[in-house]
Amino acid sequence: MRWARIEQNGSPTYAVVEGDTVIPVRGSPFAAWERTGQKLNLAAVKLLVPVIPPTFYAAGMNYPDHVREVAEKIGQKPNLPEQADIGYRANNALIAQGETIVIPADATDQVQYEGELVVVIGRKCKNLTRENALSAVLGYSVGNDVSERTWQKTDRTMWRSKNTDTFKPMGPWIETDVKLEDLVTKIRLNGEQLIAFPTNDMIFGVVDYLVSMTTCLTLYPGDVVWMGTEGATANMKHDDRIEVEISGIGTLTNPVVREGLR
Amino acid sequence: MRWARIEQNGSPTYAVVEGDTVIPVRGSPFAAWERTGQKLNLAAVKLLVPVIPPTFYAAGMNYPDHVREVAEKIGQKPNLPEQADIGYRANNALIAQGETIVIPADATDQVQYEGELVVVIGRKCKNLTRENALSAVLGYSVGNDVSERTWQKTDRTMWRSKNTDTFKPMGPWIETDVKLEDLVTKIRLNGEQLIAFPTNDMIFGVVDYLVSMTTCLTLYPGDVVWMGTEGATANMKHDDRIEVEISGIGTLTNPVVREGLR
Repeated sequence: MRWARIEQNGSPTYAVVEGDTVIPVRGSPFAAWERTGQKLNLAAVKLLVPVIPPTFYAAGMNYPDHVREVAEKIGQKPNLPEQADIGYRANNALIAQGETIVIPADATDQVQYEGELVVVIGRKCKNLTRENALSAVLGYSVGNDVSERTWQKTDRTMWRSKNTDTFKPMGPWIETDVKLEDLVTKIRLNGEQLIAFPTNDMIFGVVDYLVSMTTCLTLYPGDVVWMGTEGATANMKHDDRIEVEISGIGTLTNPVVREGLR
Repeated sequence: MRWARIEQNGSPTYAVVEGDTVIPVRGSPFAAWERTGQKLNLAAVKLLVPVIPPTFYAAGMNYPDHVREVAEKIGQKPNLPEQADIGYRANNALIAQGETIVIPADATDQVQYEGELVVVIGRKCKNLTRENALSAVLGYSVGNDVSERTWQKTDRTMWRSKNTDTFKPMGPWIETDVKLEDLVTKIRLNGEQLIAFPTNDMIFGVVDYLVSMTTCLTLYPGDVVWMGTEGATANMKHDDRIEVEISGIGTLTNPVVREGLR
């Protein structure tokens, strides 16, 4: 099942996506809901960020080649994480499918994509076990953890390098029927495929993170956990189009502009 | 003016506090509101966390003596911040006035308070200037940035050391009429005063942070910025009572229990 959040009469509305048809619901996938009688054409609706998370979690360094690549870029030694320490991103930076990534005028040319699996939490939970962890997941979406690499070297908290407005595209929707081990992430810049990797080949997997996190914290419906990216990443520049596809979930596409060149 | 968020008929409701009287409103201080005809007794209402922030910002190391004290505790060299790099905390950890800080069973005895000024954002804003920054502030509250110091040494992101459930008391309310330069923060453990410091003697002040942050990010109504704490901090243990008072705002009081000893 595929859950989108769409704009209808100026308000956000949840909707079920079936092929090219979008069926708005009353309620939300995080509580009670029922279908309305409406049927909309997918191409004609405005997709919103599929959920505004109460807390926006991110795994950060979670694929071995990426850890090595980033360490090299920012001039540090690669440091593979020894435990599933979760980090944070910020809601101000979220944009939806099709919305524009804006590179600030004072950013360098080192503004790069990171294609990531997004885990969307479906229910309040704590102390999850390896056996029941995935039952807390409503579904999965796609994220692009846009990063300014020169700022990442000096930001104490990555507030600017990772959380500048528009740096967190998420969407296009939430897919509930997913086999993690079957997923493949593909990233395309201006139509050219740059990398493809098995989405689930993480240092710490979804279950590892959910079990670890919920030893100390309560997860809430709508919380999201971005799971990290693999491999090298490349620069995005004005007028580019970046796509992150995860097989079986969908393709997140965003144009890129540089502030001042629009 | 003093804004509380209270529980009424099981739902959160904003209310104006005038002395010992609480007047519920329709609406919220972040949008349109009007007083209801009700008058409640402050002692009889359940105070909630005064706002659930869309994004929960925290300055971290922002007072010189505290930077030195923490560095010593976690075995690192003191490193005074050179710019106002904002960090993050997480909503799962928020508790209200009077609610209980729960030290997890597997925590050490190094669980410590940090009394902090909380800035509550009142309107959507970006690119604030030194002249207009404070006009974006609705008011101020009090926070206790509870921290497990041994976990803080090894957590890559402070997710556990700072964001364990119940580790972020905030309240009792939001005060809109505040002169920053007049504020004094006092911390009491079981009634004994441990420290008093001029709240505004920060390395980077409220205006510095708001101007810096909004170069890159949009602030939203209800966002909070915790401004850091001063000096040494001490351990809290089972059955303690910790109070953070900021003159002119209020006193945030929370009991402490250790999990398993309740």
